Amino acid sequence: MTLERDFHMLGGTGESSYAANSTLQKKIASGAMFLVEEAVELLVSAIPSSKTSLVLADLGCATGANTFVMLSAVMEVISTTCTKLGQPIPEIQLLLNDLPGNDFNALLGPVLSSYKKKINKSMSESGIPFYTAAAPGSFYERLFLKRSVHFIYSSACLHWLSQVPLGLNSTTEGPINKGSFWISKKSPPNVSNMYLEQFQRDFSSFLKFRNEELHSEGHMVLIIPGRLSADPSTEESAVWISWYEEGLQDLVSEGIVKASDVDSFNIPLYFPSMAEVKSIINMEGSFEVIKEDVYEILYSDCLDAIPADTDKIWEKIINISRAVLEPLLISHFGNFIIEPLFSSTLPKIYAKKFFKEKYKSANLAISLKTK
Amino acid sequence: MTLERDFHMLGGTGESSYAANSTLQKKIASGAMFLVEEAVELLVSAIPSSKTSLVLADLGCATGANTFVMLSAVMEVISTTCTKLGQPIPEIQLLLNDLPGNDFNALLGPVLSSYKKKINKSMSESGIPFYTAAAPGSFYERLFLKRSVHFIYSSACLHWLSQVPLGLNSTTEGPINKGSFWISKKSPPNVSNMYLEQFQRDFSSFLKFRNEELHSEGHMVLIIPGRLSADPSTEESAVWISWYEEGLQDLVSEGIVKASDVDSFNIPLYFPSMAEVKSIINMEGSFEVIKEDVYEILYSDCLDAIPADTDKIWEKIINISRAVLEPLLISHFGNFIIEPLFSSTLPKIYAKKFFKEKYKSANLAISLKTK
Repeated sequence: MTLERDFHMLGGTGESSYAANSTLQKKIASGAMFLVEEAVELLVSAIPSSKTSLVLADLGCATGANTFVMLSAVMEVISTTCTKLGQPIPEIQLLLNDLPGNDFNALLGPVLSSYKKKINKSMSESGIPFYTAAAPGSFYERLFLKRSVHFIYSSACLHWLSQVPLGLNSTTEGPINKGSFWISKKSPPNVSNMYLEQFQRDFSSFLKFRNEELHSEGHMVLIIPGRLSADPSTEESAVWISWYEEGLQDLVSEGIVKASDVDSFNIPLYFPSMAEVKSIINMEGSFEVIKEDVYEILYSDCLDAIPADTDKIWEKIINISRAVLEPLLISHFGNFIIEPLFSSTLPKIYAKKFFKEKYKSANLAISLKTK
Repeated sequence: MTLERDFHMLGGTGESSYAANSTLQKKIASGAMFLVEEAVELLVSAIPSSKTSLVLADLGCATGANTFVMLSAVMEVISTTCTKLGQPIPEIQLLLNDLPGNDFNALLGPVLSSYKKKINKSMSESGIPFYTAAAPGSFYERLFLKRSVHFIYSSACLHWLSQVPLGLNSTTEGPINKGSFWISKKSPPNVSNMYLEQFQRDFSSFLKFRNEELHSEGHMVLIIPGRLSADPSTEESAVWISWYEEGLQDLVSEGIVKASDVDSFNIPLYFPSMAEVKSIINMEGSFEVIKEDVYEILYSDCLDAIPADTDKIWEKIINISRAVLEPLLISHFGNFIIEPLFSSTLPKIYAKKFFKEKYKSANLAISLKTK
């Protein structure tokens, strides 16, 4: 699997697309909107009033469903703060980043165009001209010119690692995380260490490169799906993974998938605790923490537009996980896996249980400034 | 027809795609490479040596097949000039623009990735780090922040107008350019005036907005497919259009297409003379002309990799025009038109004649600096 090529949210605008299944990500983002607003206010107050433009970046924007919610909030704060300080309102450059396999056609075509249509009415109110550009690449590498960005934002992305921890498929001992494709209760104890170490390497690189790209007065707000518990195998943030682990085992029993293929499949995902995140920030040394927050989102709250106890709910829950998992599954197993795995009754049973048991997603929000 | 949505070169990487049929555009671009090299040398010499980054923009990049040829040349000049002047080599931001309907997935995915693979070997020689971003939008509007771009380049794009001249489909008199879809010998005389006036409006807007975006020491090189003759209905630059005008009339005779649909079809294309281009530059007033050149490209030279007098040649010539025309045809007539129009024998007969008669494309290259 080449992450740069194969890893992306499901594109387009269909029923299983990420665009149609990112309500959870929207809730996660709005929980930390006050941090964004505070950071932008600090930024605008600190930069000289002669500055005629500001550059904002959204890292891991996917097809942009939630990007423009953030952008609207940011533009309002810029407008209000500039008016309060008697400063002219700057122009905005919005840089949208995701991996090269992302559906940029959807982002730069219909999604951007529908946002522009929506705001055209209020543009006269905020009066901020903005220009959009999409920057492809991994945010674990450099993406932008030195000192060129004023505000960096990333929501619900940094739990994705740059790669599956290499040691999971040992060349001498073979796959060590048999039957699981993530940190599960039955994984050997060194599996969770390997995942943590990969997160430490990746998040350190992320901080180092963002520090190079940020303007000296720049701010950064990160929202990371994480966990409250000290135990990384807790199900609190990713209970849905275990459904598909069981689902894959069923396909092995039915002879549809080879056991060895399931054993060597792992996904590049880690839900850190706030203590782990802050320890890496301190160790890396470029940033100081301005503010932090941990908040939970009830998964079932993301489904409030759908009437309870109908087939629609299970479909929706399954589509949410499918939008995320499908490209990874296809890349490892091939296209044939999708139909039997997602249409089996197993995820439906679990999705029903999941909804009733009021599972929550824990989220770490952190506002940072370069030292 | 909405140009922002419907007008784009044929995407992907298939046989009819623009990516596989842009050798002519490559030849056009290389004919003016010396202007690019001179402009970049002037730019690098004029900006302070403390400048650690340069922003380049390619307007109308399509899927990028020719963009990276230009980029390589520019990077070499930057490297050589900086070394000569004892200046540190800056980082590069490359901004790639095209309309929102462009195939950005191809551009930011496989095309960019294959370029990066190719240059990685020579990166240690030139040693210039560069970052890419795609900016969707019409270049007849603002695209970038004020004073943010150092070098603007556009090749083989400005002959595309922002819209079909409005008067061509008069609300009172109906279509006035019956049987033609461009300026042909049989078009009424006011048709070519309408096209010229649309070009004047569009090119003036282009200059005005680029002047706002360019850095005070910025340069711009434009390469515009144009004509040598004073008569805008000359066939020198667009002989292929007449084949399809005849082809459409055949489809009318066969009852496949309605005559009224053909009468109301026009394409947003104008091939200016250098006198027209310079007159608009003078009138608009923001730019001074540093250097200009007019050069011709023999169409058949763009096919030199293909053995003469085989079916492959006619296929190639037809694919070149198809890559450009297909999206416009589909938008006006619907998908059904493509198969009968491009598989008819008529274009094949003409393509053969065309090749033997050594038709040429006239190109206007002009290097500009803000006043």
